[in-house]
Amino acid sequence: MNLLLFEPEELMTDGTAVVSGRRLRQLREVIKAAPGKLCKAGILGGKVGRAELLSIDTEQARLRFAAESEPPPPLPVTLLCALPRPLTFAKVIHSAVTCGVKKLHFFHSAKVEKSYWQSSKLAPEAIRQEVILALEQCADTVMPEIFFHRRFRAFVEDEVPKLCPDGALRLFGSPGAADAVPFGAARSSHVVSAVGPEGGFNDFEEGMLAGAGFRAVTLGRRILRSEFAVNSLLTLLGGC
Amino acid sequence: MNLLLFEPEELMTDGTAVVSGRRLRQLREVIKAAPGKLCKAGILGGKVGRAELLSIDTEQARLRFAAESEPPPPLPVTLLCALPRPLTFAKVIHSAVTCGVKKLHFFHSAKVEKSYWQSSKLAPEAIRQEVILALEQCADTVMPEIFFHRRFRAFVEDEVPKLCPDGALRLFGSPGAADAVPFGAARSSHVVSAVGPEGGFNDFEEGMLAGAGFRAVTLGRRILRSEFAVNSLLTLLGGC
Repeated sequence: MNLLLFEPEELMTDGTAVVSGRRLRQLREVIKAAPGKLCKAGILGGKVGRAELLSIDTEQARLRFAAESEPPPPLPVTLLCALPRPLTFAKVIHSAVTCGVKKLHFFHSAKVEKSYWQSSKLAPEAIRQEVILALEQCADTVMPEIFFHRRFRAFVEDEVPKLCPDGALRLFGSPGAADAVPFGAARSSHVVSAVGPEGGFNDFEEGMLAGAGFRAVTLGRRILRSEFAVNSLLTLLGGC
Repeated sequence: MNLLLFEPEELMTDGTAVVSGRRLRQLREVIKAAPGKLCKAGILGGKVGRAELLSIDTEQARLRFAAESEPPPPLPVTLLCALPRPLTFAKVIHSAVTCGVKKLHFFHSAKVEKSYWQSSKLAPEAIRQEVILALEQCADTVMPEIFFHRRFRAFVEDEVPKLCPDGALRLFGSPGAADAVPFGAARSSHVVSAVGPEGGFNDFEEGMLAGAGFRAVTLGRRILRSEFAVNSLLTLLGGC
């Protein structure tokens, strides 16, 4: 936890807030905070700043928050991702959120097992918990929007044109592509980037993406786990 | 498993090999391979190629391997990493190995808890298993060398000069650094890159690294988990 996140409604008008549960355990057991300690904090959807620990016991901690600055700027990348297997799904969310993605679309694809759509990891509360942890990791406060699309063809034909801003660079990952991911592309334009399932897109899907204006790019010869592939892709696009 | 790895001694003179245990389960349950199926394979420390499945049952699978080409080239980066907490240690190994690192040094640092050095994850057999899984993921065959250094000062003063090839670019991660990680640096020279613990190097350690010719670089304002920070760093250095 590199940032203690408060819900807006937790903050009293005098800037104090009381936390318990997971955040209390972090303060007690990991940060080992004592009264007077300042820690980086933020308001969900709002500013970042510092919180001073006023008191702490086994039941709750009381802190006073002072806002200082805006959260880090978002990464101007819309990520389209074939729904990964359940355990990987949470890791991909973590990876995308910590890199600053604010629009994340999961879609079905021929090589996605239908059972993945039944996973409890897709429940809104489970996703929200992953997102909060990721925001606390990367010291951000802004929740991403996350969408699901269960029909590939309808997604590419009907939804993708609407979610691509004008002039957005459109890319999809294809291990055999001739071109590398363009370094720093997200510094000069919005990028919409599609990541396939384990085993990749099939020919029909690649054809549909190409028809929708997407260009094939590769991360190189080594095959990374989905969450690391997403991290590499976003690192290169962000060009930081 | 994107590559089925054989130990050299498993291969008979006619190119056949028998596997059981984890690799058999992968073939049966994940790949759902039937006789005649070709899968990407390689010999530990040797070439990559294809293996044809000759027979498979609940006890074992028999395959015939044919070598085709060299494994992917190593990433010319020597990674020096403050020993992470035990669960993260395995993930950092995975991250470094899948990016092609062949020399990996873990060292003690002021913010590394001493208990981390007692972890069972540091046992040679546990490390070997993580490395094999990572090689199978990234379709490589070449084991990295992994070293441990329990005294920071002795490591930087006595060992680091010996492990830096002539002309190597020397970098260390420092969140507040003015410079970004140089994109593609490992394409033109060997890079030796030091990654600090959670919470970073302290001033004394940064001073020692600077004295040893290391330059501070940053991955940006967002703080990534160690395994993702390593992946981002290596992605940028590799410039793929």
